Amino acid sequence: MSSDTLLVVLDLVGIVVFAISGALTGVEKRLDLFGVIFLADATAIGGGFIRDALLGAFPVAALHDWRYLIAPTCTGLIVFYIHPAIAKLSRILLLVDAAGLGLFAVAGTHKALDHGLGPVGACGIGTITAIGGGMIRDVLVREIPTVLHKEIYATAAVLAAILFVTGDHFAWNNVITAIAGVALAFTLRVVSTWRQWSAPVPK
Amino acid sequence: MSSDTLLVVLDLVGIVVFAISGALTGVEKRLDLFGVIFLADATAIGGGFIRDALLGAFPVAALHDWRYLIAPTCTGLIVFYIHPAIAKLSRILLLVDAAGLGLFAVAGTHKALDHGLGPVGACGIGTITAIGGGMIRDVLVREIPTVLHKEIYATAAVLAAILFVTGDHFAWNNVITAIAGVALAFTLRVVSTWRQWSAPVPK
Amino acid sequence: MSSDTLLVVLDLVGIVVFAISGALTGVEKRLDLFGVIFLADATAIGGGFIRDALLGAFPVAALHDWRYLIAPTCTGLIVFYIHPAIAKLSRILLLVDAAGLGLFAVAGTHKALDHGLGPVGACGIGTITAIGGGMIRDVLVREIPTVLHKEIYATAAVLAAILFVTGDHFAWNNVITAIAGVALAFTLRVVSTWRQWSAPVPK
Repeated sequence: MSSDTLLVVLDLVGIVVFAISGALTGVEKRLDLFGVIFLADATAIGGGFIRDALLGAFPVAALHDWRYLIAPTCTGLIVFYIHPAIAKLSRILLLVDAAGLGLFAVAGTHKALDHGLGPVGACGIGTITAIGGGMIRDVLVREIPTVLHKEIYATAAVLAAILFVTGDHFAWNNVITAIAGVALAFTLRVVSTWRQWSAPVPK
Repeated sequence: MSSDTLLVVLDLVGIVVFAISGALTGVEKRLDLFGVIFLADATAIGGGFIRDALLGAFPVAALHDWRYLIAPTCTGLIVFYIHPAIAKLSRILLLVDAAGLGLFAVAGTHKALDHGLGPVGACGIGTITAIGGGMIRDVLVREIPTVLHKEIYATAAVLAAILFVTGDHFAWNNVITAIAGVALAFTLRVVSTWRQWSAPVPK
Repeated sequence: MSSDTLLVVLDLVGIVVFAISGALTGVEKRLDLFGVIFLADATAIGGGFIRDALLGAFPVAALHDWRYLIAPTCTGLIVFYIHPAIAKLSRILLLVDAAGLGLFAVAGTHKALDHGLGPVGACGIGTITAIGGGMIRDVLVREIPTVLHKEIYATAAVLAAILFVTGDHFAWNNVITAIAGVALAFTLRVVSTWRQWSAPVPK
């Protein structure tokens, strides 16, 4: 698969998943219709905005391709009206969110390498792409970002990014490495939630 | 009027209006002199920073042209000292803020189209230009951004952006479309405040 | 000394200092290991991210040069484990933070001038480079940024930036002006803390 097609597919799937997460947070915080849609958009494409603004990849993907903005907007609108049905799906949401996390980490790392960054910088971009939207979501509703103090979340993104960078270094097939990276983040995230693993806290 | 002149005029008027809003919030939150000025600057030019960083329009307008930074700084300084007089003008402030909202939405949409974005992306940029500064202001003083949960505000910006994009598509005169967009946002904002309209909230 | 070498040296020293400040805040707020490291990174390189994203200086320095990301990450890791020892050093931390403030203000102003900004814009960039990381740190842990309402902090950065811009205008030796700027910010910051000076607050 070409680099560009791979990026678009990874991005669009992740965007809808993250939009659901943002919209549900907005509903919970009693935002109005615009607020719910905005939070869906910001959660879904905020990480990509940070990625592209730091890479200097203009025009940023989510503005250049109208599907990137329409997809989370429609998702937010739908969640606004049918949120009780969606909130019942918390287990399924955990799974799709775990997949979105891996997708964004890999897509971000991939794009950073394409723009000529080294391995350390590419992992940084992959991580911020994956967790940036959720951090914007939490800051906008006045919460300390979940990713900074709860559960194994960012760690899964970091490891997926490292795997993809390693594969790139050894010139492995990029589709296979991408899938492996997403699977790694997904598995780690789901298993850690199920087993209630968490990162160490300061003494 | 040339594109560039139109942009500068729209920007400068909006900047002073938004600086007043930021400075008054800073005074209310008991920030110090630097804090009041910084909040005035951030509210006034924060939306434009986001716009230019996402468009890749370097150097960003507010840094390239010294008037864009000096105008809100002086506004913040003046408000710091005469805020009781200004706070009495709350009705007038509502009117100028409504005008600023429309001005920024139209200026942002205009610049996005100039940079080759499509209609959806341009509306996104116009909206974030109009509401971005106020969101930064609210996040910095630890409030959930007003625009996400109160009144008709962002909706007015979105509609102004859509009107301008439509005018651009049909090649209407850009000055007339700009004025119509600002008037639309202004009227909707003022009437909705007066009639206490608000966007729907989740059930 | 060449412009580039001067920038790298100024940046790396400031980065470690600011990373300590971020990591200690993370420990205090009971973030987990990833959270402490992320806050160290964000505090250390967040100001530079904003600077480079506004200047259009791609790839941004902290991603292009792996030392810029590894240095605060290791600093965060170390602080996570030995924070009681470091917290005892509060007086020394005040001194290094004051030095970091001056270093970032001068480095930011220098880079902005290198990118062709005028004096007002360069001072704006210098100031936001110096205080941006700390503001991100405070917003992420849900505090109103200290710099907006406590003590003389940003003022020291602004004055260092103005001094450097003045030196540049009159073509003074840039190493000497840089040292003078850092010394000015450092002295003002340390003396104002010692004498408990603070900026005026609104009546």
